[in-house]
Amino acid sequence: MTKIKKVAVLGAGNGGHAMAADLTLAGISVNLFEFPEFEQNIDPIKKRGGIEITGVARTGFAEIKSVTTNLEEAIDGVSHIMVVTQSLAHERLAKDLRSRLKENQVIVIFAGSGGGLVFVKILKDDIKDKNLAIVETITLPYACRIKGPALVNVSRLIRGILAGVFPAKWTHQILKPLLEIYPSMMPAKHILEVAFYNPNVLLHPVASLFNIGRIEYSKGEFYLYREGFTPSILKIMDAVDREKMAILERLGLKPLSLNEQFMLRYGESLDKFLEKMKVLGSKGPFSAKHRYITEDVQIGMVFMATMGRELGVKTPVLDSIINVCSVINDADYWKTGRTAESVGLK
Amino acid sequence: MTKIKKVAVLGAGNGGHAMAADLTLAGISVNLFEFPEFEQNIDPIKKRGGIEITGVARTGFAEIKSVTTNLEEAIDGVSHIMVVTQSLAHERLAKDLRSRLKENQVIVIFAGSGGGLVFVKILKDDIKDKNLAIVETITLPYACRIKGPALVNVSRLIRGILAGVFPAKWTHQILKPLLEIYPSMMPAKHILEVAFYNPNVLLHPVASLFNIGRIEYSKGEFYLYREGFTPSILKIMDAVDREKMAILERLGLKPLSLNEQFMLRYGESLDKFLEKMKVLGSKGPFSAKHRYITEDVQIGMVFMATMGRELGVKTPVLDSIINVCSVINDADYWKTGRTAESVGLK
Repeated sequence: MTKIKKVAVLGAGNGGHAMAADLTLAGISVNLFEFPEFEQNIDPIKKRGGIEITGVARTGFAEIKSVTTNLEEAIDGVSHIMVVTQSLAHERLAKDLRSRLKENQVIVIFAGSGGGLVFVKILKDDIKDKNLAIVETITLPYACRIKGPALVNVSRLIRGILAGVFPAKWTHQILKPLLEIYPSMMPAKHILEVAFYNPNVLLHPVASLFNIGRIEYSKGEFYLYREGFTPSILKIMDAVDREKMAILERLGLKPLSLNEQFMLRYGESLDKFLEKMKVLGSKGPFSAKHRYITEDVQIGMVFMATMGRELGVKTPVLDSIINVCSVINDADYWKTGRTAESVGLK
Repeated sequence: MTKIKKVAVLGAGNGGHAMAADLTLAGISVNLFEFPEFEQNIDPIKKRGGIEITGVARTGFAEIKSVTTNLEEAIDGVSHIMVVTQSLAHERLAKDLRSRLKENQVIVIFAGSGGGLVFVKILKDDIKDKNLAIVETITLPYACRIKGPALVNVSRLIRGILAGVFPAKWTHQILKPLLEIYPSMMPAKHILEVAFYNPNVLLHPVASLFNIGRIEYSKGEFYLYREGFTPSILKIMDAVDREKMAILERLGLKPLSLNEQFMLRYGESLDKFLEKMKVLGSKGPFSAKHRYITEDVQIGMVFMATMGRELGVKTPVLDSIINVCSVINDADYWKTGRTAESVGLK
């Protein structure tokens, strides 16, 4: 395989900023895309002509090759399309990409929670006709935060980025060039394995929902990692974790516990991670409409629970969280969420 | 019917203190009973020879006729047995009373959440043989709190005390003398109707569970009524309320919403009640093991949800709360709780 020379980064939030800057400084030509309605995310970058990046990745000022709200322009001539949008945007993005993709392009979905399956379903014909590959990873490679206009800080590089490839037989071949930019990528057995390993899906909703009274009473004067992970919250997370592992086991996959995931990701236990985050964690969430619920429950948890249902694995605690989050957000996440059926696995 | 002259009050918590004192000052001879393992509840009363009562009921010092841990002694010669223990004790108490009861005695269970059904099931033969009656009410007649040794304050008298009688055909006859001491008692259609109208079953668990992170993080520096009833909590309560009403409807009973219950109880809306309680409400709960969960979920909610199941009424929000409360208290409330089956209604 040849070295990666030109990529598109889709999504210009925290992760998109960090990735576009880091890869640019690594000598890769980057097209950064944002949806038109979020154009304000890229305005400062256009103004400055690039992104300043501080912290533990490559640092300095990165002149981004192209910054655009035109998807066709963004993916033109790139070998890899990096998807770092919220997972709520996956379906739309896959549909927008359909019939616009070129031969041999590779789509990499970061922290997908089953997003890979969404792309596989929607791009099915393209994948066959154009020899495409879909990669899904369990996490962004960067713990990062936008700190100002066109300024991003990376506080941590994530290790142990489990990555699944579709078609699975190409896993080795597809991951080889990616490993040059993200050496901590690790091959998963197949794309479905990684769908359950986004740790945010376990951490965020439980700590948010069972602190929702405090979040609302304090009007957002709330630090999830400082205040939120009390003994009862940890027990609920553990119960969800066991439901997740039962699903993986039923799929014939070796299940990792959340703690084992953390050992893999950070080389440290969940307890130690939570201890550190008491100091490092940022403020929020500020309401029930936060993506810790709208994204992590609607996408990640509904996918897990409906997969459990398909496989005959009971998930009473997951179900409970989804039920109550639906109530507080006047929604029915069982219907609007990412279900086994919606990714084509029913 | 003759006037009530002699009663037993079983349970010497807040409610037992208030009732024993108030009825004594009304000229009724009261035997106050407490379980031997809670003897410390009655030690101060024995020492002072009675209970001082302040607030809005009868006030003054009430010399309690008899204060005892001997159940047989407590119920000897009384026409009415007032049950004001936690509902968790109902089953044990009913078993202890079995074959000790005398002809024509009336057992009145306050804020029963289906406790009447428990007594009916366990005392079935006695009821027939000895011409007994069981009454269940939706609430204690007193909003009250122990303020010191043998000292209780009543902050509010409850109006609209819906009361169901078994056997139902005796409702009028049985309630008549009770109305002389509690004029705000109102006849229910039958004993099952009142089982769903204990408002604490809706208020306490929801506000406790969805603030559990705060309760634990603050180490009990938490005021449920001041901090707990935020918009999301109210939405969850409303969802549970709708499940409750669907069950009552299926039972052929006219369902009252929680707000209608409050209009009946206090002559004011739920909103106004919650507003007042921001000032009046006491501190707590302090942990997940509080009776707002151990009693209100295990007894009240499990009973509601399992009745729903028997009747083919879906109760996803109730079920969700029970599932998660089981997790945080390392229990299975579906098994240990008060079920439709355990009260003989399966």
